[in-house]
Amino acid sequence: MPELRRDPIVGRWVIIATERGRRPNQFRTPAEEPAAGFCPFCPGHEDKTPHEVLVLGRQAVPADVPGWRVRVVPNKYPALMIEGDLDRQAEGIYDRMNGVGAHEVVIETPEHEKDLCDLTDAEITEVLFAFKARVLDLRNDARFRYILLFKNHGAAAGATLDHSHSQLIALPITPRQVADEIEGARRHYEHRERCIFCDIVGQERKDRSRLIYENEEFVAFAPWAPRSPFETWILPKRHESNFEAEPKERLALCAQALRSTLRRMMAALGRPAYNFMVHTNPLRDAPSTSYHWHVEVMPALTQLAGFEWGSGFHINPVPPEEAAEFLRKVAV
Amino acid sequence: MPELRRDPIVGRWVIIATERGRRPNQFRTPAEEPAAGFCPFCPGHEDKTPHEVLVLGRQAVPADVPGWRVRVVPNKYPALMIEGDLDRQAEGIYDRMNGVGAHEVVIETPEHEKDLCDLTDAEITEVLFAFKARVLDLRNDARFRYILLFKNHGAAAGATLDHSHSQLIALPITPRQVADEIEGARRHYEHRERCIFCDIVGQERKDRSRLIYENEEFVAFAPWAPRSPFETWILPKRHESNFEAEPKERLALCAQALRSTLRRMMAALGRPAYNFMVHTNPLRDAPSTSYHWHVEVMPALTQLAGFEWGSGFHINPVPPEEAAEFLRKVAV
Repeated sequence: MPELRRDPIVGRWVIIATERGRRPNQFRTPAEEPAAGFCPFCPGHEDKTPHEVLVLGRQAVPADVPGWRVRVVPNKYPALMIEGDLDRQAEGIYDRMNGVGAHEVVIETPEHEKDLCDLTDAEITEVLFAFKARVLDLRNDARFRYILLFKNHGAAAGATLDHSHSQLIALPITPRQVADEIEGARRHYEHRERCIFCDIVGQERKDRSRLIYENEEFVAFAPWAPRSPFETWILPKRHESNFEAEPKERLALCAQALRSTLRRMMAALGRPAYNFMVHTNPLRDAPSTSYHWHVEVMPALTQLAGFEWGSGFHINPVPPEEAAEFLRKVAV
Repeated sequence: MPELRRDPIVGRWVIIATERGRRPNQFRTPAEEPAAGFCPFCPGHEDKTPHEVLVLGRQAVPADVPGWRVRVVPNKYPALMIEGDLDRQAEGIYDRMNGVGAHEVVIETPEHEKDLCDLTDAEITEVLFAFKARVLDLRNDARFRYILLFKNHGAAAGATLDHSHSQLIALPITPRQVADEIEGARRHYEHRERCIFCDIVGQERKDRSRLIYENEEFVAFAPWAPRSPFETWILPKRHESNFEAEPKERLALCAQALRSTLRRMMAALGRPAYNFMVHTNPLRDAPSTSYHWHVEVMPALTQLAGFEWGSGFHINPVPPEEAAEFLRKVAV
């Protein structure tokens, strides 16, 4: 069973994911890569993944056969296990609990050679719809407090399989990065009775120097203090705290913003590896007037080094105004 | 002038370091590497770095000539600039200040082919002594609140030059990672009137399952909740909040602990890239009964991916008890 351990000083939780199978002596560099040449995510190989939990584009029965457009399966090497209780325990001054959670893979397309940004707006809308459907299902499990939706694309961004996919991890705690955002937003709301994300959207749309893309409902821009070059945030213009509350029409407009952002990055930067993360309101919280869901997209262009590890401070060699101008000018 | 920008939501500062010279269009992957074959840190090339600020092993005058054992120079591509005022400003809802600080390189040995772990205990003691001397000098500059000492070894850990070196960055603010540690330690002290790091040292020495190395004054162990496989902390057993307060005899024992830790990692893991960071009390704070300086060593074995970026949560496939056992057994 994987284990969650809490650092006693700063309260940072870590997943000790022994089920993932690398033993200490397998960390001799270079790390072993999974066998190439065979793709468990391609149609016809449905029996090489755990049983699907959601499929779009064909009937649910019979399961695990070709014909799908989007397919969601449990991760074969999960960081957390779906079964069991948290069983919180102390060990001297330390805290641990069982690594209970869900870890699923969203296979975004049956076509092995396409990346997410090569899909149509309608296809990306279905991927976002699959995210929403999984959140709505998993939130029924009372053990989970948060679901993080994210994508690792390319080896430099942590992907181990080429076939385009994203992931979700349902957690028994709200992760610190999100808790910090929520707390910052709450403090802003306390003083001003306005959502800080709505304020940011307002300032960015007025200022325009960091703006990258805009449609009726969504805006993409380089944030004021980006952790890495070309970091881009996508926000709904209208206040909404919960990603899963968005109706399909608005997910379609989010898909357009995401596709435009990714295509600009791919064209401008030579198809870099990248990550994106969806930040949304925790599952057990009421819809919030101060928090605002959004997507953070980060191309994997720089290396985390001692300064970043030691300080939590990032060094970014490209001002967001220059990055945004560069991405705005890309023809897509 | 580089700029410090504060994320308005979570308060995370970012250095926008335009002086480092990569323009947006230079981020097309793969990133350009510095020219190989010529080493500006080797003896005889002293004129290829900025003027030295400290030298051990030869007279200070004439400067910038061979004969040194350890040489400290300003970084030629600094993330922060030594001259100017902070000039804090608002831009709408955002905050910025000038990127004022020091960024120095500690060239650890004149021998190009040696890494830090290949040096003798006496040589590593001199490196630590150079760290201390630079902190004692830079703390006289009232603009600085914190000095982070760190090392990037190997490309995967962010190093761009092979010749063994570490770095220091003096900052006008205490970085969040350290502030979080100080705050966690303060809360522990409030309840128990004991330093949490002293408590951890006590538990680790008693439990022994995560212990890696111990001498009269220092202990090295795998922390309870390591962010990455084989993360190792080195702490003085006796309470001390400030690295720069350590006398040379104790720095010599710290050097032994550091050398033993690094040699074990190198032997066990096939000379991986790694980072280490020294965490110490902020410059303007009085010596603290609740905070305890230490070194964190992290081999660069795993990739930061969407989950880590999005959650601030780390997934570690190796339990620290297994990592410690593996490192303990290495013959060094």
